[in-house]
Amino acid sequence: MGSLSPQESNINSSPTDMPSALDPVEFRRQGHMMVDFIADYYQNIEKYPVLSQVEPGYLRKCLPESAPDNPEPIESILQDVQKHIVPGLTHWQSPSFFAYFASNVSIAGFLGEMLSTGFNVVGFSWVSSPAATELESIVMDWLGNLLTLPKSFLFSGNGGGVIHGSTCEAIICTMVAARDQMLRQIGLDNIQKLVVYGSDQTHSALQKACQIVGINPNNFRVIKTTKSTSFALSPESLKLAISSDVEAGLTPLFLCATVGTTATTAVDPLDSLCQVAKYYGIWVHVDAAYAGSACMCPEFRHFIDGVEGANSFSLNAHKWLFTALDCCCVWIKDPSTLTSSLSTNPEYLRNTATDSKQVVDYKDWQIALSRRFRAMKLWLVLKSYGAVNLRNYLRSHVKMAMLFEGLVSTDRRFEVVVPRVFSMVCFRVSPSAAIIISDDEINVENCINEVNRKLLEGINASGHAFMTHAVVGGMYVIRCAIGVTLTEEKHIAMAWKLVQEHADAILMKNNI
Amino acid sequence: MGSLSPQESNINSSPTDMPSALDPVEFRRQGHMMVDFIADYYQNIEKYPVLSQVEPGYLRKCLPESAPDNPEPIESILQDVQKHIVPGLTHWQSPSFFAYFASNVSIAGFLGEMLSTGFNVVGFSWVSSPAATELESIVMDWLGNLLTLPKSFLFSGNGGGVIHGSTCEAIICTMVAARDQMLRQIGLDNIQKLVVYGSDQTHSALQKACQIVGINPNNFRVIKTTKSTSFALSPESLKLAISSDVEAGLTPLFLCATVGTTATTAVDPLDSLCQVAKYYGIWVHVDAAYAGSACMCPEFRHFIDGVEGANSFSLNAHKWLFTALDCCCVWIKDPSTLTSSLSTNPEYLRNTATDSKQVVDYKDWQIALSRRFRAMKLWLVLKSYGAVNLRNYLRSHVKMAMLFEGLVSTDRRFEVVVPRVFSMVCFRVSPSAAIIISDDEINVENCINEVNRKLLEGINASGHAFMTHAVVGGMYVIRCAIGVTLTEEKHIAMAWKLVQEHADAILMKNNI
Repeated sequence: MGSLSPQESNINSSPTDMPSALDPVEFRRQGHMMVDFIADYYQNIEKYPVLSQVEPGYLRKCLPESAPDNPEPIESILQDVQKHIVPGLTHWQSPSFFAYFASNVSIAGFLGEMLSTGFNVVGFSWVSSPAATELESIVMDWLGNLLTLPKSFLFSGNGGGVIHGSTCEAIICTMVAARDQMLRQIGLDNIQKLVVYGSDQTHSALQKACQIVGINPNNFRVIKTTKSTSFALSPESLKLAISSDVEAGLTPLFLCATVGTTATTAVDPLDSLCQVAKYYGIWVHVDAAYAGSACMCPEFRHFIDGVEGANSFSLNAHKWLFTALDCCCVWIKDPSTLTSSLSTNPEYLRNTATDSKQVVDYKDWQIALSRRFRAMKLWLVLKSYGAVNLRNYLRSHVKMAMLFEGLVSTDRRFEVVVPRVFSMVCFRVSPSAAIIISDDEINVENCINEVNRKLLEGINASGHAFMTHAVVGGMYVIRCAIGVTLTEEKHIAMAWKLVQEHADAILMKNNI
Repeated sequence: MGSLSPQESNINSSPTDMPSALDPVEFRRQGHMMVDFIADYYQNIEKYPVLSQVEPGYLRKCLPESAPDNPEPIESILQDVQKHIVPGLTHWQSPSFFAYFASNVSIAGFLGEMLSTGFNVVGFSWVSSPAATELESIVMDWLGNLLTLPKSFLFSGNGGGVIHGSTCEAIICTMVAARDQMLRQIGLDNIQKLVVYGSDQTHSALQKACQIVGINPNNFRVIKTTKSTSFALSPESLKLAISSDVEAGLTPLFLCATVGTTATTAVDPLDSLCQVAKYYGIWVHVDAAYAGSACMCPEFRHFIDGVEGANSFSLNAHKWLFTALDCCCVWIKDPSTLTSSLSTNPEYLRNTATDSKQVVDYKDWQIALSRRFRAMKLWLVLKSYGAVNLRNYLRSHVKMAMLFEGLVSTDRRFEVVVPRVFSMVCFRVSPSAAIIISDDEINVENCINEVNRKLLEGINASGHAFMTHAVVGGMYVIRCAIGVTLTEEKHIAMAWKLVQEHADAILMKNNI
């Protein structure tokens, strides 16, 4: 008699009394424990340095070299999280986090994520979980209406919305749609002639999208902006760039216009840019990743005036609309351009609902097949706070930015570099306030940039706040971006005090 | 004295007593409520039809036309979820879900997702949250070691791992790396000459990736497989296809080999495919989305023998490794190919750690800039169950598939269409068992396909189980894919009884 094969022998030796990995009683116990752990984290968050102070490689020194063979209890896992992970976090939910743009969480966003993970349905096709698809279409219309987007962007007006993971994904998908539409006219062989336009303030997601979809690197136009337009893209410059490309025999394809640039929250003038684009027949995508959410307040809506001339529009609800990562809302006027580029129809996904063409299959609106039930978060945020409170939350951040801006203005050593538009203040130690021993204008700029760099380094090393920088028009500026849910006016006052203290030390040391 | 501008007036009218959207006390209360809601959902999950029975458009009829102006309490939101969302779900966590491939959840995966959302750090650069980056590198080495991947794929061997959202993203990124490496040799103008290879069993993600990265649609080779190789890609067929392309002056670029195809879990022979690929200098990506996890069991490891000849390898921990969506683990031998294609270095992200080149910045390993802290889930799953129990969980699913396979074999009306390899059984009502009034072989196949289509429709309409189909070699087959955490042997027995009952009805009706 032959012995069992290793496979059979292993299978037969599996213990049948293994605990279920989704036992509801245990789920409840550990789930409650985790809720308390995270609630405690929020209650204690101000005790941690905002910017993590660890050194590269710290974690390999703390953790074992390989995965454990045997189960560890949740209690000791949570101890490890507290001991080894928390010190290595840069605390994005800290009320003194003013870096980059916020990526804010709320109770409703958190609960929505729990539900989404709990159900863990994969809504690639309508049939694979109808509620996931239908709720997404509905909340995207809801949010579109709150933004008073033109009806042509909504399902109710033959456009439509989809939730992507990121702006880069949104740009890739719309750029591919534009590319294929154009190549159908001019032939595949002309892919190397396609030109994409942005400004020197456009997010790097545009460059990355170009790299991915096969735009010739020589045909990515980074149009220079200046302080005279507050670093917004000038329609005249765009027109010049395009006409020069047309003269050179190239084919203008795609413009990414920005509402709220990363460096300074500049707003590109959509109306006149879309007119130029329309003349040359190029696709306009509006990237309102950060500032788009604010446009649900009537007083900010004018910043997207002209969006009716664009082909697609996106904002990151995971930045300033309380959903937590990830939730990039994308609207498109002609979804068929997207689906004709992104559709695949493998037999194993065929089903009656899809064949009927009466349903949306979101797999054809995005890169991946799989997709998380992100609409749940957005729905919970909209329901749990209501439009009125959401607007007020957004306004409270803007109000705090106004407060910070006011504080900067009271100290003559500082200047606000560009006018504040939303909830971010770009400021710096002013060259005029610092006596630098040089007659050379370039050297003055270099010196003052160095002073500001050191100032920011000092602020961040203190652990009491975290801000980041940008360089615009040759100026090194400090960005104070407000948008974390826990931030209150007192944190703004503390942050300003911190800036002043560090400025005192640096300017004194430099004999300024 | 002028009146206030609308903006100022709105801001000043914001209520200052608005409840915080992240009040820890309220967070705790609502969080506990949600844990109980989801625990109840799991306890009751067998009461719901597995495949949602709603009609397209059902949800618009239930929900208001626009977002509410005012907050709704969590209690009423949860009632809405129960009343309007749950009926529209296809329950992927139901123990009788055997469709597609599972996307399974566990307590540890769920808790990891909670932590990740709670912290909501954005680990695009090391500095933006060092623990997020370092934990990801560590757990990717841990998991790579559990799979006994060659050291060249691990950080400890100058390769490295990254967690993407989906296989499609993994294929896009590796294809772009391969594309750019090749174009640096042959010149940008030759992008239209690049050829990509897969089989007729390769996942549609490959086709989509080709569409996105700008591969000429005429240069996407879908190599036919046959039953004789159990629908695995034949190295000889690959060689023929490549050499014919070379003769035609084209440039072979990329092969996607699959370990565990979607239709039948076929395994492409990595070793000999990689040898062919090496000869022609083409990039090999191994897509082990579903079956890769099983390869941490020694008895399944041989299915990825030869992976040392590949350039990159991916598996979806969100399919069969209990992390919940999304968690696609990707290893790559030469990360510099990836980063040279995907890097962008905007000034606003510059920092000392990056400049030192001592750290990993995962933004340059993936499509998006933003990224969720997915490593937390994988870490918690590995720690909470340990390698021993994880292997046993995987084996328990395989064992249940063996059980189902055995049941099918006992009923002479049925046949197992291809040998079971992992935890999926492909079966159908056998043509030989059905007396069909036709001498024409093609008609027999058509008739039997129709019988099986109707059988599957009946099973799914019952709500008691959900399976999906594939068509291979002209045969319509029913796929019973086992992998949901809650599935036990009794559910397999019930599923088989359901299949038999529906077969009785259909075969009787057809006088068979």
